[in-house]
Amino acid sequence: MTTTVTALAAPSAGAPFETISIERRDLRPDDVRIAIEFAGICHSDIHQVREEWGPMEFPLVPGHEIVGTVAEIGDEVTRFAVGDRVGVGCFVNSCLECEACKDGEEQFCDQGVVQTYGDHDKDGATTYGGYSQGVVVREHFVLRIPDGLDPAAATPLLCAGITTYNPLQRYGAGPGKQVGVIGMGGLGHVAVKIAAAMGAEVSVLSRTAAKEEDGRKFGADHYYATEDEKVFEELAGHFDLIVNTVSADLPLDDYLGLLGRGGTLVNVGAPSKPQQVGVFSLLTKRRAFAGSMVGGLPQTQEMLDFCAEHGVTATVEVIDAQDATAYYDKVVDGDVRYRAVIDVSTIG
Amino acid sequence: MTTTVTALAAPSAGAPFETISIERRDLRPDDVRIAIEFAGICHSDIHQVREEWGPMEFPLVPGHEIVGTVAEIGDEVTRFAVGDRVGVGCFVNSCLECEACKDGEEQFCDQGVVQTYGDHDKDGATTYGGYSQGVVVREHFVLRIPDGLDPAAATPLLCAGITTYNPLQRYGAGPGKQVGVIGMGGLGHVAVKIAAAMGAEVSVLSRTAAKEEDGRKFGADHYYATEDEKVFEELAGHFDLIVNTVSADLPLDDYLGLLGRGGTLVNVGAPSKPQQVGVFSLLTKRRAFAGSMVGGLPQTQEMLDFCAEHGVTATVEVIDAQDATAYYDKVVDGDVRYRAVIDVSTIG
Repeated sequence: MTTTVTALAAPSAGAPFETISIERRDLRPDDVRIAIEFAGICHSDIHQVREEWGPMEFPLVPGHEIVGTVAEIGDEVTRFAVGDRVGVGCFVNSCLECEACKDGEEQFCDQGVVQTYGDHDKDGATTYGGYSQGVVVREHFVLRIPDGLDPAAATPLLCAGITTYNPLQRYGAGPGKQVGVIGMGGLGHVAVKIAAAMGAEVSVLSRTAAKEEDGRKFGADHYYATEDEKVFEELAGHFDLIVNTVSADLPLDDYLGLLGRGGTLVNVGAPSKPQQVGVFSLLTKRRAFAGSMVGGLPQTQEMLDFCAEHGVTATVEVIDAQDATAYYDKVVDGDVRYRAVIDVSTIG
Repeated sequence: MTTTVTALAAPSAGAPFETISIERRDLRPDDVRIAIEFAGICHSDIHQVREEWGPMEFPLVPGHEIVGTVAEIGDEVTRFAVGDRVGVGCFVNSCLECEACKDGEEQFCDQGVVQTYGDHDKDGATTYGGYSQGVVVREHFVLRIPDGLDPAAATPLLCAGITTYNPLQRYGAGPGKQVGVIGMGGLGHVAVKIAAAMGAEVSVLSRTAAKEEDGRKFGADHYYATEDEKVFEELAGHFDLIVNTVSADLPLDDYLGLLGRGGTLVNVGAPSKPQQVGVFSLLTKRRAFAGSMVGGLPQTQEMLDFCAEHGVTATVEVIDAQDATAYYDKVVDGDVRYRAVIDVSTIG
């Protein structure tokens, strides 16, 4: 027995969204049924719907930034009650037995995680994401949305928030630290807000000065337009940490040169082509070039609690389901300020 | 007033060594005069004598792995007495006032360090290295060679030792850690010995199995010939830390794939061309690609004390000065087991 919900699906690679019916499984003892309120549009949704990262199965229901309320719980669920506001991020299952899972870094599960959409769960079932009216998720993979966080604006925290919080926290962003954020889009604007809330001195490194006013509103202390090459001389050796949220190819040695002694450049975006790195850029000042990928469940909850405490949410445009197709182009064109979130009540 | 000493000098780029006389300054209050016993041949000496890293001044007296005894001390010298066995590494002066110097990471001095040879000291004087019978060095930059370390075999610790000890120590090589060492030459064989002494489980990643017997003698638990591509499948995700001592271009993504969650690949060798890194190799398992460059004075002393405590020295061929030119070719051909050290008493 299953439950039918209405969803927004791409019928084939890159095709406009259509409304379809999908089945959600009946509750297992450790399942939570969520009535979805909001689903964020992440740039990676677009890559996958357009098969830019490889072949996908269709119809595809994207969405891995999900906020809603608990509609029903399984017999063994202890952490949630009907009516609680909850969230789901990029993955909905993992083995929970390997070292990574035990360390609360389920995203690196030895057996691989089950992605929230476009994947197959342990039982073989296709996963469908948050562009839908409801979803059933194993309790372990459900997050509590703290009171006081606006649900629509909190939605992007489930991916953009944890993606940027993870390296900021791991590499010690805080008082006395110089943190640079490359790019101020969906990920970057959240990185700026979180880094500022952590107490770091935050600089935006954006191609142009177009978003400077917003950047300062988000908490940036400085805003640099990198189309002016003098920036790379002026800021040489300046940063303790740079979070690169841009997926385009960048002259990485120029950015590594902005790091001080022991500094780290962390990529959270993934350019598809190999990047060039001059090893002398790393040897001098013992710098590092690192990668980071979302975060585990304990850290994601920690991030949500941190954001609630500091009043951090994404800056969002709440859109109707019928506009999702058009917004995919707007996201690609960098025309969204700063994250589009679908009001799921408008589906169907 | 100065003191004249005999030295081995390259009269021009890549030319055979000749014996010349050079002047060493009279002692300043914080100077130590060292009667040199041994000077190691580092691959970087060869790069510089041959101007492979850029133009140099000639005559050039190389040598930044220096061991000898104190012959005379300035009035303000407190840490050394005549007759003490001492060492000098890659640099002989820095500002001692910037944050890096204050943190004991003089190698990253904001004003730049004064290299032990082929550089100009703060007073403008050309620096000449350890292929000579004596040198005068500011006390701060002189290391104590602990009793019990064979002076010839300890000589390479001043560069090869600290270069490898630094990342091994910083990235936590020790019991329960899987450490890989790429290349088993002058740097690599010392890395193996130090990592093993730290208690890590050590694997050599060498192109062929030719040096396997030596590797195990040096303390390696495992030895892998990377010409067998299966190694990269078998060891996928295996290492916590890989120290890359090879300056040649390597398929870095293959080696990054050998790192487990949170693992780091540290380059201590510097390939001259930019290296290709696929960012997905870093995102998955949040890996890092880092650089490291020798170490500061406090850590270099710590390394020497550690090596004395654990009986670690380099495995050396002690050679006569007249063979230095020929040994440059042997080093380049990888024919030295494992570091050549000039017996300085044979100069002149």
